[in-house]
Amino acid sequence: VREAFITIAEYGEFALIAAIEKTLRRNANLIVGIGDDAAVVRAPDGRVVAATDMLIEGTHFRREWSAARDIGGKAAARNLADIAAMGARPTALLVSFAGPGATAVGWVLDLVAGIEQEGSAAGAVVAGGDTSSAGVVMLAVTAIGDLEGRQPVTRSGARPGDVVALTGTLGSAAAGLALLRAGVTRSGSGLEPLIQAHRRPHPSYDAGPEAAELGATSMIDISDGLVADLGHVASASEVQIEFRTTRIMAEPISTPHLLARAAAALGGTGRTEGAGRRKRPGRLEGTSPVQGADPMRWVLTGGDDHALAATFPPGVSLSERWTTIGQVSQGNGIVVDGKRWTAPGGWEHFSTW
Amino acid sequence: VREAFITIAEYGEFALIAAIEKTLRRNANLIVGIGDDAAVVRAPDGRVVAATDMLIEGTHFRREWSAARDIGGKAAARNLADIAAMGARPTALLVSFAGPGATAVGWVLDLVAGIEQEGSAAGAVVAGGDTSSAGVVMLAVTAIGDLEGRQPVTRSGARPGDVVALTGTLGSAAAGLALLRAGVTRSGSGLEPLIQAHRRPHPSYDAGPEAAELGATSMIDISDGLVADLGHVASASEVQIEFRTTRIMAEPISTPHLLARAAAALGGTGRTEGAGRRKRPGRLEGTSPVQGADPMRWVLTGGDDHALAATFPPGVSLSERWTTIGQVSQGNGIVVDGKRWTAPGGWEHFSTW
Repeated sequence: VREAFITIAEYGEFALIAAIEKTLRRNANLIVGIGDDAAVVRAPDGRVVAATDMLIEGTHFRREWSAARDIGGKAAARNLADIAAMGARPTALLVSFAGPGATAVGWVLDLVAGIEQEGSAAGAVVAGGDTSSAGVVMLAVTAIGDLEGRQPVTRSGARPGDVVALTGTLGSAAAGLALLRAGVTRSGSGLEPLIQAHRRPHPSYDAGPEAAELGATSMIDISDGLVADLGHVASASEVQIEFRTTRIMAEPISTPHLLARAAAALGGTGRTEGAGRRKRPGRLEGTSPVQGADPMRWVLTGGDDHALAATFPPGVSLSERWTTIGQVSQGNGIVVDGKRWTAPGGWEHFSTW
Repeated sequence: VREAFITIAEYGEFALIAAIEKTLRRNANLIVGIGDDAAVVRAPDGRVVAATDMLIEGTHFRREWSAARDIGGKAAARNLADIAAMGARPTALLVSFAGPGATAVGWVLDLVAGIEQEGSAAGAVVAGGDTSSAGVVMLAVTAIGDLEGRQPVTRSGARPGDVVALTGTLGSAAAGLALLRAGVTRSGSGLEPLIQAHRRPHPSYDAGPEAAELGATSMIDISDGLVADLGHVASASEVQIEFRTTRIMAEPISTPHLLARAAAALGGTGRTEGAGRRKRPGRLEGTSPVQGADPMRWVLTGGDDHALAATFPPGVSLSERWTTIGQVSQGNGIVVDGKRWTAPGGWEHFSTW
């Protein structure tokens, strides 16, 4: 098709916007959509939940590592997950796109398709946006959501005695990124699920409202890494949070065998506490040892899987998708396997404030 | 102070966010602010109005031409003006900032101060955001607002017989940008108001809700240029819009004498239809003639002043800040001084969809 070859500079801004508008579907949340000064979206609760962040080529993704559809999906997912982590239901997305004039129109339309697809999975409609020119591709997405009458679940409500539970996966995206960085991308390695986890997370958006209904006292989207993000909760709630790695270095939270194989392929130890692998597979040809290629490190500090952590009053009855990993006590900071965590936590390359 | 010299890379992300958080004030719109996964903002109307766009170094501003505070103010103003243009009252801003690690912390705090200052002028609170690293400074701002029970004023409601009215200024920012591009920035030239207009617009945010109350049938924030934006209204409303340049090449909409002096300084004609200047001031030393340095062109196609245009039913009684410039009739497209406008309209370097 024509859009696969023509560039956005040749197409022009108004034509690009018209082409984007044509591909988008509407839903009942949308009162005024693309084509006006601003979007108008239903906010039946009388409060609106909003989160925003940027995905920047070179910092957060590379076009040679990820397809446009995955980049768009990831940009949407990051913000939709933040809405869910407040216990809210996403309703709409706003998107600012900037990129070089030589970018193919088809690439931008694929990007938008990824955003819409992910929004749609969460119940959110693409309501508006903006296009600019820039030296690299950058994507700023704002997600908004509705609390449906519930109180927002913040980071500050954890209380001593609460249990800490998790849904989603940890470590896969970090391992996938390490594989991509090292050039270990050949198909047939069996490591594709990790690479795909870096390319595009699949948060369980409805787990957020579910946790709120179940009485979650605090909740956070794991985007800086488990230790760093539970650290945010501990700090905001003025409590100590303890957890055991045996609970997270196991299915369904992580895939220890796959992570160990990835670490081995990268020249790491491949040994994973709790995973019990004995044989250490050899490093793949043509790769160099990667510092920090360690399953435990990926699981504790990797930030891009967008698992959801929440604290609940003791005795709560959780659905199957939640795994209890620890508990809240008096004090402060994070205790892992009985030892106080003192390392500079998490993946401080940029998060939400 | 320390923040003037230390870089954001040295400071670290969490320290930067904490420093930003400390500078920000709260208001009654804010239920949950910075420091959680997402912000929660009052939306008493039950609908939320939202607009977003990006300001990118090199594309939209240069750090050597504009102070951090003005860049922040401008990024906020563009989106706040979009909210006002729907007839809504801004309530909150979300901000994504990205920049080189070598950026001074003090510079970023000034940027945020500009955003907060502009938000505050419009009644909006900085509710949340995100920081990233990037090769150049980029700023994505989302503004949200409340309709206070009014119907949104879209681009599609203009009807034959309506009058077209304008509040704010036209052409100053475009002239100021041309002066900066040509290096005409010396103080004492008397042209500083134009340069300042480029650096930071000052939209009349309350004119939007006022127009809605007065029964505006359509409304648009002039960001692509008067002809292009009235063209959007004509197209969305399926009407023709006529206006006379005598009304816009005059105070209070434009400053024809100042624009003529700027054009002359840039080697343009300096003659402005309707402005009646006879003497042509000489071009400033050390500058080359600038193509398109023409007051009429700046006023008709310049997009960065953020004037507000609206259509009203005939016989409407408008407050003093509105200037009637034309009327709506059956047909399509734009008619300027009785002649159909056929030039490729406006400043298509990127706008809101």
